[in-house]
Amino acid sequence: MKRIGILTSGGDAPGMNAAVRAVTKTAIHNGLGVVGIRYGFAGLVAGDFVTLTAENVDHMISLGGTFLYSARFPEFAQPEVQKKGVEQLKKHDIDTVIVIGGDGSYHGALALTRLGINSIGLPGTIDNDIPCTDYTIGLDTACNTALEAIDKIRDTASSHHRVFIVNVMGRGCGDIAMRVGLASGADAIVVPERPYDVKEIAETLKRGFAAGKDHGIIVLAEGVMDAEEFRTELLKYGDFDARANILGHMQRGGSPTVLDRVNATKMGNYAVKLLLDGKGGLAVGMENGQLETHDILDLFDDTHRSDETLLDINDEMTK
Amino acid sequence: MKRIGILTSGGDAPGMNAAVRAVTKTAIHNGLGVVGIRYGFAGLVAGDFVTLTAENVDHMISLGGTFLYSARFPEFAQPEVQKKGVEQLKKHDIDTVIVIGGDGSYHGALALTRLGINSIGLPGTIDNDIPCTDYTIGLDTACNTALEAIDKIRDTASSHHRVFIVNVMGRGCGDIAMRVGLASGADAIVVPERPYDVKEIAETLKRGFAAGKDHGIIVLAEGVMDAEEFRTELLKYGDFDARANILGHMQRGGSPTVLDRVNATKMGNYAVKLLLDGKGGLAVGMENGQLETHDILDLFDDTHRSDETLLDINDEMTK
Amino acid sequence: MKRIGILTSGGDAPGMNAAVRAVTKTAIHNGLGVVGIRYGFAGLVAGDFVTLTAENVDHMISLGGTFLYSARFPEFAQPEVQKKGVEQLKKHDIDTVIVIGGDGSYHGALALTRLGINSIGLPGTIDNDIPCTDYTIGLDTACNTALEAIDKIRDTASSHHRVFIVNVMGRGCGDIAMRVGLASGADAIVVPERPYDVKEIAETLKRGFAAGKDHGIIVLAEGVMDAEEFRTELLKYGDFDARANILGHMQRGGSPTVLDRVNATKMGNYAVKLLLDGKGGLAVGMENGQLETHDILDLFDDTHRSDETLLDINDEMTK
Amino acid sequence: MKRIGILTSGGDAPGMNAAVRAVTKTAIHNGLGVVGIRYGFAGLVAGDFVTLTAENVDHMISLGGTFLYSARFPEFAQPEVQKKGVEQLKKHDIDTVIVIGGDGSYHGALALTRLGINSIGLPGTIDNDIPCTDYTIGLDTACNTALEAIDKIRDTASSHHRVFIVNVMGRGCGDIAMRVGLASGADAIVVPERPYDVKEIAETLKRGFAAGKDHGIIVLAEGVMDAEEFRTELLKYGDFDARANILGHMQRGGSPTVLDRVNATKMGNYAVKLLLDGKGGLAVGMENGQLETHDILDLFDDTHRSDETLLDINDEMTK
Repeated sequence: MKRIGILTSGGDAPGMNAAVRAVTKTAIHNGLGVVGIRYGFAGLVAGDFVTLTAENVDHMISLGGTFLYSARFPEFAQPEVQKKGVEQLKKHDIDTVIVIGGDGSYHGALALTRLGINSIGLPGTIDNDIPCTDYTIGLDTACNTALEAIDKIRDTASSHHRVFIVNVMGRGCGDIAMRVGLASGADAIVVPERPYDVKEIAETLKRGFAAGKDHGIIVLAEGVMDAEEFRTELLKYGDFDARANILGHMQRGGSPTVLDRVNATKMGNYAVKLLLDGKGGLAVGMENGQLETHDILDLFDDTHRSDETLLDINDEMTK
Repeated sequence: MKRIGILTSGGDAPGMNAAVRAVTKTAIHNGLGVVGIRYGFAGLVAGDFVTLTAENVDHMISLGGTFLYSARFPEFAQPEVQKKGVEQLKKHDIDTVIVIGGDGSYHGALALTRLGINSIGLPGTIDNDIPCTDYTIGLDTACNTALEAIDKIRDTASSHHRVFIVNVMGRGCGDIAMRVGLASGADAIVVPERPYDVKEIAETLKRGFAAGKDHGIIVLAEGVMDAEEFRTELLKYGDFDARANILGHMQRGGSPTVLDRVNATKMGNYAVKLLLDGKGGLAVGMENGQLETHDILDLFDDTHRSDETLLDINDEMTK
Repeated sequence: MKRIGILTSGGDAPGMNAAVRAVTKTAIHNGLGVVGIRYGFAGLVAGDFVTLTAENVDHMISLGGTFLYSARFPEFAQPEVQKKGVEQLKKHDIDTVIVIGGDGSYHGALALTRLGINSIGLPGTIDNDIPCTDYTIGLDTACNTALEAIDKIRDTASSHHRVFIVNVMGRGCGDIAMRVGLASGADAIVVPERPYDVKEIAETLKRGFAAGKDHGIIVLAEGVMDAEEFRTELLKYGDFDARANILGHMQRGGSPTVLDRVNATKMGNYAVKLLLDGKGGLAVGMENGQLETHDILDLFDDTHRSDETLLDINDEMTK
Repeated sequence: MKRIGILTSGGDAPGMNAAVRAVTKTAIHNGLGVVGIRYGFAGLVAGDFVTLTAENVDHMISLGGTFLYSARFPEFAQPEVQKKGVEQLKKHDIDTVIVIGGDGSYHGALALTRLGINSIGLPGTIDNDIPCTDYTIGLDTACNTALEAIDKIRDTASSHHRVFIVNVMGRGCGDIAMRVGLASGADAIVVPERPYDVKEIAETLKRGFAAGKDHGIIVLAEGVMDAEEFRTELLKYGDFDARANILGHMQRGGSPTVLDRVNATKMGNYAVKLLLDGKGGLAVGMENGQLETHDILDLFDDTHRSDETLLDINDEMTK
């Protein structure tokens, strides 16, 4: 084993750069070279490679986004494109690869492993929608960004005795909504994992205002329903001043939190060790705070399981 | 002069609480009582009054929103409603009033003055759209909130070589957009004050990408055009990956910045002194960093003038 | 069981208010009353009680500090003072108590339980120095506050090719230093849990500068050594521009993070359920992300164990 | 005129990078080249030059510190060293220079101008201690950083009914202390510009606690007295729980605020225009929000004047 290639794939997430840094520094410590592959699998096939040194990754730990860039590249599903990628890697003496990204990117990592390039996948997405892990790199930063925005929105909601329906990210997965909802003291958390009843939510809000509460917050996972549509539904059951607010793409960016930097660093460090042990085709995850690995194949048969006790607790505190 | 009534009106703005605190502490220092009028002019007519002390306003300096609450109350345009308000004030020994709010609220302040209750208006709105002042309480905080969001969005934009059209607040006034656009290094700032050319903006973006820039940011004042509509227009002239993002209501909230707290405090302090001097019917403003007063009547004949040199500088740096 | 008394004890920590809110809302949901005991055990003995409602705890979730106040009260170790406290509780129909605080406060909770008032302890301190739990309420916020400060300090360090020795909180426990050190990419993390070698640290810094690094950061747990003293030691082995910086008390305050709010809410909710089950004399903790309980007595025989793998990883990346 | 050299000198300040970016983009727009001179005047003499393009300054607008680095270089006071610098500039076709830094750096700018290299000075320091300007680049960010820290400290102060003496930066100039003191609602602001009476401050604090205030904050400019020494003095006149806290170097770093970025951009843009007009030996400043220039010589005969009305207002609200 000589050189590790590292790439980021899918949507960017805060902490990706910290993971790249950890891979680079750990690899160098172990006498290996590290090559940054720019623009994900597209750059892998195109040979868009940059040598990484301890010094040029040094400042990256505090930066959001991915300095290696990311790009969509569905073509990498094709065997001949994969082979081209492997040729590029071999030409540049890269014999192992670490991929940081969403579940789509694991397919690429598995394909490379099968073609003789041991590859490890790290879960990098704010959405926390990857199987076999209860944490993904970027989740904590995205949640804190959303929470800070909702704390600001609450100022306005309270000043005007208003209800805000706040759409947070998470297309198929309500994990951001559950955490942020509980943390913001939301009157209701609406996620794809659990049925909801708009009328009941309206009753909760009415009870709150009647008891002296000066505002209402509903946290809505983007996958469930359009926020404006939800507002229209809600207004059928109550005569509130209600507004819809979509937090949008800022949830993807920003300097990563302590937790995201620490976990990204742990995972990057661990991935290098797995490669040094001759492992490949593995996905790194975190379960109950401990690093775990799974065969990438197992992920394809599984789905992410959310901690729905957060919803139970919120229900208990609002109803 | 015995007691000052103070109310907040219109949309809430960070720094309103700091202004209420400054009025309260200055008044008490000068031997006057202070009464908080809740829910703006609606509360004035309803007699929703709370006594303010130095201690209960003490912690308010760092909080966004308005703890006195605000409410729409167009009925206050009617003379008989105004009279009712004056009766409430007299019943509670309140002989002067300070109103913090947008330009709508100045009508109320003038009406009260004409009915014998000397009243002073302070400019409290994030939009900076009030005549005879180049600063309104809340502007600086809103700009910094928007900037922090755009800095986050830039992480994602850069990671994916993407263009973001970011809609910031300011319905009829581009002041937030101008400041935030210049501060975020936007490729274009689109405001109601100046014509724009979507094709030219697209050319700027193309030139940027061609020269090696890894992202594009357009800051769009909400009053000009819907962000999605702008995106559709833009894509006619360039083959970008472009997204629209509306920052929304979080721009209204949050703990006020140093500038907003200092200026709100200066203005609150000054308003009490004007009342002590027997003045009424005046609007407090800030021009070139100095406190100024104008007859409220003058405001109605005037319009806010923006510092358009910011646009000239941005043009010079992007074209 | 009729009414729960709740108090905060020891140093304040962000998330204490979120825990009080969760206790209050969960108790009310279960038909119980909640009484806030102000100023910790001192207020318990003095009978400084306030009734808590869902509405008056509502806004507290986002606020740092403890709105119930805290106070030192070593007198509560005396049996006759404890009895006085129990009398106060009985007089006010309070038959159970939840104590949020550091390990000192667990003695009080145990004493109350033995006197017939079932009491539960929640770990509330930024220091993470409590046995039988790997998380304490406030830890995550304190770490993020320290990290943001170090990110700022790094700007100056880099601009001047300087080394900063940053003293973070944690008198007998290096957990803040370990997390923040790893997250800030520190060249060295100095904690009470592990011996350190100033000369070796100086060598690491010299190697870094020689290789092109533009700054150095050493994160020092306050319990180990005075930062200025450390600086003097360090300068014996290298000719750096080095400065010492003590982050200080701001690490204790601030709006809690998502993790601290979520965990504080989980713990507060859980504590009420334990009381409903007739339990007392228990300490709530979190191990590997899961809620756990231990007899308070067990805590007195045990010590907190830190995750020292963070130090190993940092060593591997810096040496 | 062909190429502008740009350097940063003295302590780093947030917004320096924004100013460098503005100079670069404006110069390129006007057909000029721009050369970054690294490590201040030391790098000028050593010829440590890097070509700046619009793309490589693009991301710098949001970063604290100075990416051109800064360094002490008292040797530049010597005429023969200055001549060497001029030779380096001429060798690299640099015929004009912009210097961003504290008042020390203006001597260098004047020396270069006298030797035929037209040079302009921009005020870059958080301390606001430069004559002929009421604003320096970095002041607003430093004030907001200090304010956020004090808001956190207040949480702890309030929780424990404690007084904090917070030392903020500003060795010979109390401008940071005045702004931050007023914005944080400090009970006292202690600055070099005005005598103070510790006994009177203690009386103010006592009156506050007696009236129900739950904390005390004293903002102390670092130039006046050591914070621990102040605490010892204070405790002679009152039996408070008081702590001293030095905010330290984090006040120098961090992403610049809107105001600092906008003003740095205005100033950088303006400096290029002055050079295009053939001007040299000038210091750019801001008075009452407007750009101004002064002969650098005038600065040497003058001193900075602070807005002491902030102290008067604070006095009025606390005594």
